[in-house]
Amino acid sequence: MVPLFGGIEAGGTKFVCAVGAGPDDLRAEVRFPTTSPAETIERALAFFREAQAQHGPLAALGIASFGPVDLDPRSPTFGSITSTPKPGWANADLAGPFRRAFGLPVGFDTDVNGAALGEWRWGAAQGLDTFLYLTIGTGIGGGGLAAGRRLHGLVHPEMGHIRLPHDTARDPFPGLCPFHGDCFEGLAAGPALEKRWGARAETFAPDHPAWALEAHYIALALHNYICTLSPQRIILGGGVMGQQQMFPLVRAGVRDLLNGYVQAPAVLERLDDYIVPPALGGRAGVLGAIALAGEAAEA
Amino acid sequence: MVPLFGGIEAGGTKFVCAVGAGPDDLRAEVRFPTTSPAETIERALAFFREAQAQHGPLAALGIASFGPVDLDPRSPTFGSITSTPKPGWANADLAGPFRRAFGLPVGFDTDVNGAALGEWRWGAAQGLDTFLYLTIGTGIGGGGLAAGRRLHGLVHPEMGHIRLPHDTARDPFPGLCPFHGDCFEGLAAGPALEKRWGARAETFAPDHPAWALEAHYIALALHNYICTLSPQRIILGGGVMGQQQMFPLVRAGVRDLLNGYVQAPAVLERLDDYIVPPALGGRAGVLGAIALAGEAAEA
Repeated sequence: MVPLFGGIEAGGTKFVCAVGAGPDDLRAEVRFPTTSPAETIERALAFFREAQAQHGPLAALGIASFGPVDLDPRSPTFGSITSTPKPGWANADLAGPFRRAFGLPVGFDTDVNGAALGEWRWGAAQGLDTFLYLTIGTGIGGGGLAAGRRLHGLVHPEMGHIRLPHDTARDPFPGLCPFHGDCFEGLAAGPALEKRWGARAETFAPDHPAWALEAHYIALALHNYICTLSPQRIILGGGVMGQQQMFPLVRAGVRDLLNGYVQAPAVLERLDDYIVPPALGGRAGVLGAIALAGEAAEA
Repeated sequence: MVPLFGGIEAGGTKFVCAVGAGPDDLRAEVRFPTTSPAETIERALAFFREAQAQHGPLAALGIASFGPVDLDPRSPTFGSITSTPKPGWANADLAGPFRRAFGLPVGFDTDVNGAALGEWRWGAAQGLDTFLYLTIGTGIGGGGLAAGRRLHGLVHPEMGHIRLPHDTARDPFPGLCPFHGDCFEGLAAGPALEKRWGARAETFAPDHPAWALEAHYIALALHNYICTLSPQRIILGGGVMGQQQMFPLVRAGVRDLLNGYVQAPAVLERLDDYIVPPALGGRAGVLGAIALAGEAAEA
């Protein structure tokens, strides 16, 4: 019998919970808005109680969470959100209630490291050991693996907050990041697009200048990640990348910026296969959480 | 009896070769200018022949090389320099001649990954699993470990080539990088300092504005590496960082740029212990090569 896992994609806007063994074997799924920690966690607990009653016991749970989070297993606050501005969620213990309620191993990581793990297990990063998963939507976050291990370190990557060249003659918008102004997220996340152009991004035509500028910032960021981490592939998800015109624009931008410097066929000749959408699509997050559960069960 | 290793710090300007077991046990050392591949490699071979006659057989050799290099063990050109503009060195096989001459395991990596490994083994990165080693001199390069493994990936990091904000009102200098113009190396490596200010950097007084601008670019780059990799420490070597005033300037710049966003005591309160010089000083390179030899012997 295939072991069943529970996965929680814990987002700042919504939670997605699922029970299953992989993309072709999902037995139950629910999504609900993120309200207070107590209420939201209780809804998730209720879902997994019910799912276990119906589908049998789970082998482990995985949580892929919005952040910043405490990923240090030696820390007393391991498994918590840390300093989020989201009301009520600063220092909220996310992993603890599930561990206590079910007595199961609980895998825990950032939403993007979770999604990266899901793509590695079942999606666009199979067989790779160093790659990035980036989501560009309401916020910008990045995760991935280096030499086969998830990116952690001092805390965890905060890739959305790198500083980029900002030509204020071309784009006088000062950026929206409360910490850094015109960092990558401040210039290129969804709220920046809407504020800069004064309308919701979904309403822009594919040839609206917003997209070329957006692709320019994404390409600059990718150039920097490529030079810093040398990933074997970069997976781009999130609402902004759902725009069909974006992938060709971003790939052309990266090719121009690298300018032949990195001597690898993957970036010189095969950018279509180097900068790609998530193979798991919108389910990369919750499947990543299930992949985290799988790792926790084996640990 | 302690096993003896041979190490080669293969630089674009000079080669340093040594035989020993670590920083407190170096038996022989030689340095000579980098000329043609054939002549340079022959001098190194002669040194190791002589050293083995005098000190006994080596267990392995390690080469920490200028780049770009081929680090893929499955590649037919593994152990070679690849696309360097340095005359004669493009596609030069560096590891092969030593493997054939001595029949020993040969560890091979970039100069900065080698130096990082040396600092991890004996220096400022002991006990860490995710950290960076950056050298800022004639060029700018970075290496390090992530989750205990050296940074490789598609090729290897080229951290000197990330793009940074460049305020052309404050600094109209267009940058010197033949590929990217005003990337980090183009703006901040030694040759850029000299060209921008029209004099050799060593001649500038400690309060010359060149240093504040230089520290600003280094701090921007470190901000980006911190957001991308979340290192537990950053080691800064190279000629530019030999200037005593630089570390305080860089630390202050990083603190201002992060602006409290990364919630970790290491960057909020202990930057003196977070951004540090190499503990092995100028010997980080050749000791790193010896550390690579140690790993090759165990592989």
